[in-house]
Amino acid sequence: MYDCGRIAVIGGGSWATAIAKIVVGHTHHLGWYMRRDDRIEDFRRLGHNPAYLTSVRFNIDEIEFSSDINKIVQAYDTLIFVTPSPYLKNHLKKLKTRIKDKFVITAIKGIVPDENLVCSEYFHQVYDVPYENLACLGGPSHAEEVALERLSYLTVGCSDREKALAFSEILASEFIKTKISSDVIGIEYSSVLKNVYAIAAGVCSGLKYGDNFQSVLMSNAVQEMSRFLKTIHPIDRNITDSVYLGDLLVTGYSNFSRNRTFGTMIGKGYSIKSAQIEMEMIAEGYFGTKCMKEINRHCHVNMPILDAVYNILYERISPQIEIKLLTDSFR
Amino acid sequence: MYDCGRIAVIGGGSWATAIAKIVVGHTHHLGWYMRRDDRIEDFRRLGHNPAYLTSVRFNIDEIEFSSDINKIVQAYDTLIFVTPSPYLKNHLKKLKTRIKDKFVITAIKGIVPDENLVCSEYFHQVYDVPYENLACLGGPSHAEEVALERLSYLTVGCSDREKALAFSEILASEFIKTKISSDVIGIEYSSVLKNVYAIAAGVCSGLKYGDNFQSVLMSNAVQEMSRFLKTIHPIDRNITDSVYLGDLLVTGYSNFSRNRTFGTMIGKGYSIKSAQIEMEMIAEGYFGTKCMKEINRHCHVNMPILDAVYNILYERISPQIEIKLLTDSFR
Repeated sequence: MYDCGRIAVIGGGSWATAIAKIVVGHTHHLGWYMRRDDRIEDFRRLGHNPAYLTSVRFNIDEIEFSSDINKIVQAYDTLIFVTPSPYLKNHLKKLKTRIKDKFVITAIKGIVPDENLVCSEYFHQVYDVPYENLACLGGPSHAEEVALERLSYLTVGCSDREKALAFSEILASEFIKTKISSDVIGIEYSSVLKNVYAIAAGVCSGLKYGDNFQSVLMSNAVQEMSRFLKTIHPIDRNITDSVYLGDLLVTGYSNFSRNRTFGTMIGKGYSIKSAQIEMEMIAEGYFGTKCMKEINRHCHVNMPILDAVYNILYERISPQIEIKLLTDSFR
Repeated sequence: MYDCGRIAVIGGGSWATAIAKIVVGHTHHLGWYMRRDDRIEDFRRLGHNPAYLTSVRFNIDEIEFSSDINKIVQAYDTLIFVTPSPYLKNHLKKLKTRIKDKFVITAIKGIVPDENLVCSEYFHQVYDVPYENLACLGGPSHAEEVALERLSYLTVGCSDREKALAFSEILASEFIKTKISSDVIGIEYSSVLKNVYAIAAGVCSGLKYGDNFQSVLMSNAVQEMSRFLKTIHPIDRNITDSVYLGDLLVTGYSNFSRNRTFGTMIGKGYSIKSAQIEMEMIAEGYFGTKCMKEINRHCHVNMPILDAVYNILYERISPQIEIKLLTDSFR
C-alpha cells in the first residue's frame, strides 16, 4: 500500500477546514498553510478556524501552521490544495521549492483563470507534476454538513490506483465513505460545471419557476455535463455516479449552496455587483462560468445552460429572456 | 395526423383535475367520470373540483360529467385514466362496453395490485387493448404546480408515434411543454419507482441525514431504476431524460410530494398506521413498494433501496437499521 507520508493542507476556507478535520482525525498530525498570520494566531488561541466552520474544534498540538508556503511544501509529502481557484496562481508564485515529487491533491472546485485549465492540468503543465502524482477530491460534500458529521461520500480521483486507495483510506471514517476513480479530469470539470448549473437553478428559482421546472433543469444539466465530459475526456463513465450527478444535485438543490443563492439574487433582479456584495463568500461559479465558456469555444459542445448563465452574468442580458429561451431548448 | 376525437378523463383527484384543465383548454369539451354524484353536483355548483385543486376554475358548460363509467366510455374516443392504481380494477369492473378500440391513456402512477402489472399491460392483457392504442403520460408534474400554471414538461409514451404526437399537441400550451417517447413500460415503471425512492428520501430526512447524503441517495436511486428498467424492458433509453430522472427528482426533493412526507413521518418514528391517518391522501408509494418487491422477486435485480423501504413498511424493521445497512451498499 502506498504511504501518503506527512500530509498538509494549503488553504484556509471552509472546505479546507473540513478536510483538515477529516485528515487530522486519522493522522493526528497536519501541516497547514494559511496566508494570513493573524488568522493563524487566532486559530491557535481559539482552537478553531476563526472565520470558517467555527464550531469545528481542533487539537492545536496536532497542527503545524505556517504562512510560509515553502516551509509547508518542503516538509510534507502529500499536499492538499483547497484555495479558491482564482487565487491558486498567486499562492504558487511564492513557491521556491519543486513539487513534482509530491503527491498533489486538488480539492479546488474551479478552473485556473487565464490558462483555463483544471487544477490537475495546471500542476502538470506548469509544475511538471506527473499524472501519477496528481489526484482530485470530489463528491457531494457541503463543508457545513461534513463539519456536522453528517454522512457524506467522497471520491478520490487518481490515475494511480494505489495512491487513490491510500488517500481514500485516510479520509474514511464513520461519517465519511470513500470511493476511488481514475477520471481526474472528468471529476474536476464536473465540479466546476455544477456551480454554473447551481447558479442557473438559483436564477430560475428567483424568477419563480417551480419544482417541476427545476427537475427538468437538473436533468438537462446532467445531460449537458455528460456531453461536455465526453468531448473533453472521452472515457467510459457513469454520469449518474454520485461524484457527478450527486455533486450537481447537492449544489443545485441545497440551501447551503452559495452559487445557488447568488443565482437566486440575480433572478430576483439584483445587479451582479450588489449580489456579490451581499454574499459573504465568493460564488465560484461566477468565475467558472467565464472559464467554461472560453474553454467550450474550442470544444463546440452544445451547452445551452452554460450559455444562458454566461449571457446573464457577462453580457447583461435579462434573466427573463435568457431563461425563456433556455426553456425552448429543453427536452 | 391522428385525431384523438372526443376526450374523457376517468378519475376525480388532483392530477385528474390538472389534466382535465389542460385538455379542456384545448378541446373546449371534455367527458369526465367521477365516482361520486355529490362531488359532481358540488363541482357543477362551485365551478371547481370541491375536493382537489380548488383554485382551478372550469367552464362547466364545457364538461359532461357522469358517475356512470359506461356512459362516458361509450361516448368518448380517448380515455385518460387517472384513478389511484389500487382502485382501477373496481372502476373497470363496472364496464359493460369494450374499450379495445379506444385510445387508452394511463396517467396513473402505480401498479395494478394482485396482477402486479403496470396499467398499460393490464389494459392489454385483461381488456385486449392493442399496444398501438395504449399510451402513458409521464414527467415531473406536481399537479399543484401545473394548476399554478408553472412551466412543466410532460412526456407522452406510445408505440404509435402519430398517436403520441396527436395527444402531446392537445396538452401543449404556454406553460406545458411536451415530448414523445416509445418507452411506455419504462415510463410507467419509473413513475412507480420514484414514489418508492421518495419515501426513502423522506425516511432519511426524518432520520436527520443531510443534503450530502440525500444527493447520494438520489444518484443511487436513478442507478437502481436504470438497472430495473434494463431488465424488465431492455430498450435503449437515456435514464437522465426528464421523464425518468426529472420525475424522480421532483418527487424526491419537493415539499409537494406526499410520498416524501409519508417517509419523513416514518423516519421521525411515526407508526405506519398513524402516518397514514395523518396524511390526507394515499401515498401511492406505499402500495407501489409492495408491488415492486413482488415483481422483482421474478426479476432478481439488485434493488437495495426498494428492499430497505419494503422492510421498513412491511417487515417493521427499524428505519435506523435499514438505512444504516443501505448506506453501506451505496457508491
